[in-house]
Amino acid sequence: MKFPQGFRSAALAAGIKPSGKTDLSCVVSDRPCSWAFAGTRSTTAAACVTRNREVYASTRPVRAIVVNAGNANAATGRQGARDNRDMAEAAESVFELPRDAALTASTGIIGHLLPMDRVLSGLEHLPDDLSDDVGAFATAIMTTDTRPKTATATLSSGAQIVGTAKGSGMIHPDMATMFAFAFSDAQVDQAALREAFPGIVSRTFNAVTVDGDTSTNDMAVAICNGAAGEVDLAEFLTALETVMRDLARQIAADGEGATKLLTVQVSGAASEQEALTAARTCCVSPLLKSAVHGNDPNWGRVIMAVGRSGAAVNVEAMTVSVQGVPVFAGKPLDYDARAVSESMKAEEVVFEVNLGAGEAHGEAWGCDLSGDYVVINAEYTT
Amino acid sequence: MKFPQGFRSAALAAGIKPSGKTDLSCVVSDRPCSWAFAGTRSTTAAACVTRNREVYASTRPVRAIVVNAGNANAATGRQGARDNRDMAEAAESVFELPRDAALTASTGIIGHLLPMDRVLSGLEHLPDDLSDDVGAFATAIMTTDTRPKTATATLSSGAQIVGTAKGSGMIHPDMATMFAFAFSDAQVDQAALREAFPGIVSRTFNAVTVDGDTSTNDMAVAICNGAAGEVDLAEFLTALETVMRDLARQIAADGEGATKLLTVQVSGAASEQEALTAARTCCVSPLLKSAVHGNDPNWGRVIMAVGRSGAAVNVEAMTVSVQGVPVFAGKPLDYDARAVSESMKAEEVVFEVNLGAGEAHGEAWGCDLSGDYVVINAEYTT
Repeated sequence: MKFPQGFRSAALAAGIKPSGKTDLSCVVSDRPCSWAFAGTRSTTAAACVTRNREVYASTRPVRAIVVNAGNANAATGRQGARDNRDMAEAAESVFELPRDAALTASTGIIGHLLPMDRVLSGLEHLPDDLSDDVGAFATAIMTTDTRPKTATATLSSGAQIVGTAKGSGMIHPDMATMFAFAFSDAQVDQAALREAFPGIVSRTFNAVTVDGDTSTNDMAVAICNGAAGEVDLAEFLTALETVMRDLARQIAADGEGATKLLTVQVSGAASEQEALTAARTCCVSPLLKSAVHGNDPNWGRVIMAVGRSGAAVNVEAMTVSVQGVPVFAGKPLDYDARAVSESMKAEEVVFEVNLGAGEAHGEAWGCDLSGDYVVINAEYTT
Repeated sequence: MKFPQGFRSAALAAGIKPSGKTDLSCVVSDRPCSWAFAGTRSTTAAACVTRNREVYASTRPVRAIVVNAGNANAATGRQGARDNRDMAEAAESVFELPRDAALTASTGIIGHLLPMDRVLSGLEHLPDDLSDDVGAFATAIMTTDTRPKTATATLSSGAQIVGTAKGSGMIHPDMATMFAFAFSDAQVDQAALREAFPGIVSRTFNAVTVDGDTSTNDMAVAICNGAAGEVDLAEFLTALETVMRDLARQIAADGEGATKLLTVQVSGAASEQEALTAARTCCVSPLLKSAVHGNDPNWGRVIMAVGRSGAAVNVEAMTVSVQGVPVFAGKPLDYDARAVSESMKAEEVVFEVNLGAGEAHGEAWGCDLSGDYVVINAEYTT
């Protein structure tokens, strides 16, 4: 897969990851880009999120994003903020960009200072190998991801959107950091893009976390360099949401220890926000996730999760189905539990819930909870 | 352990639990009781919670509580509400109590109608074996608990408080149902008790769940029959909180699959509510829980969980310690990771966090996350 025109990328192993895998990468545009950004709502946001937010507020165009994996540069105090700024300035210097034209993104362990000698030395070597291939970048941003995640869309004008994301899954709100980057050669008005972006993020990437809860470093960025000329805005935004939805589902399916994708579709809600909240609350429920892992059609856990989400429900009008089979309609229904359990041995398990309280709908994604999740996370640092 | 004077109890195996263990029990007072109640905030609350709440609103005294385990009678529609009322009325009949003098509590699987023939037949046999022993009752209310949970306090006047709780642990908000019952022979003004009760529940049982999120059936009840006469109200409330705190810690320590207790003490918060929220958010973090399971002093996960809790923090003034060892003070501190890891192989792991944002404090309890949790919950119904 190639980047849209005008974008080039490089990745190398700077020695930040102990494994020696590629861990420093960048994407650079040959011209200024309109862009939109959504960062973690965490009150302990990492240096990269804090700085990107400041750059965002300036509304100036950007030209590049530099990403390191293996170290989140979070909870690193003032030194961490200085290191992040140095990383951005070094990138701007080597790519001959204006000040604050490079965004930064860091992911990995929290509470350790960045090895700046390696970062700066790596940045100097990045421009040596710029190419239009997406694969190396998509791989270099990974941490415990088992596979790179990319998605693409082509507009009727021929303009492209190429997205890539990382996130070792986990629907859990304090999951490993999630990054989502969408690059496009479409020419898009920045104000219009920024107005639409929060809604798109809410329906896509925030639907794999909970209630907008995110890690210290989470961010989603859309960057448009206009090389392919003007596009229809509505068509562009729809395509962008499709790309980001695809990536969000990939993140959920690659959840730490996951063996399958969990999809919860909520309808009949009083508002889209309540539909999303109810769907997300189901997707983070460790009890429901465990049941999905065991192919157990224990729909009572859906009732419970919806109940605690706070979304308005009319229990008498509420319905639940598992893999298309109705199991609850104001009261328990008779169904073939063995057949439903069998149907849950699929790559994707879908619960449909109608809250009976309105007309709005929303969808969230997660994964099952397996013993491997604990194994992966019990000794991440040691 | 014996109940306070004036309370008697009985338990039997009515055939609700497939295992054949005791599953139907009651506590009856020989005189009217002042009482306080806190029920789940779930919008899909079970029939027992809904009815108890109605009885509570009447402010009339109660005389008994009847509990069944093995079936939650939740998401069972109008039939479920009728069954719950029939269960209460049958208890009132056999114990010759006034209407609405018996509370009910059901725990177990959601979405199945109560086997009313067994429940009603069991209720008729309950009065045959009333005694003042707590053990049989504490055991009959268990589901996946590995041990009964009781705590007691004696006031200076000689009045007693005896508490018992069930909850197969899980700090997770959609945990298996939690019940907490405190019985006392103290004479306590009902209005004063009801005014203090929400705060006590917030600092104790709600500190083993999250943000007041609870299952469809969760409830905490304090029942005082006055047989031992008047007591000092402040002394009583302090003792009640001590008993409920003890039970809350027992619930956390007996979490499904738990091998140790996780305690998070938050100070320096802007309010008690924010301190509790931050502490609870740490205690439900599957990443932190996994780290505790692996004896991994990965304090970055505390920073992350606090950050996503939304509590106000001043990161530069923030401090974190693990098992008494300072690891963060506005920036990462040098510490002996191996020694701290060794110290985490204890029955209780304590994180102390100062948010640097105020003077309030709060504490929450959870447990580590082990692979056994998944095994327990993957096939609960099948």
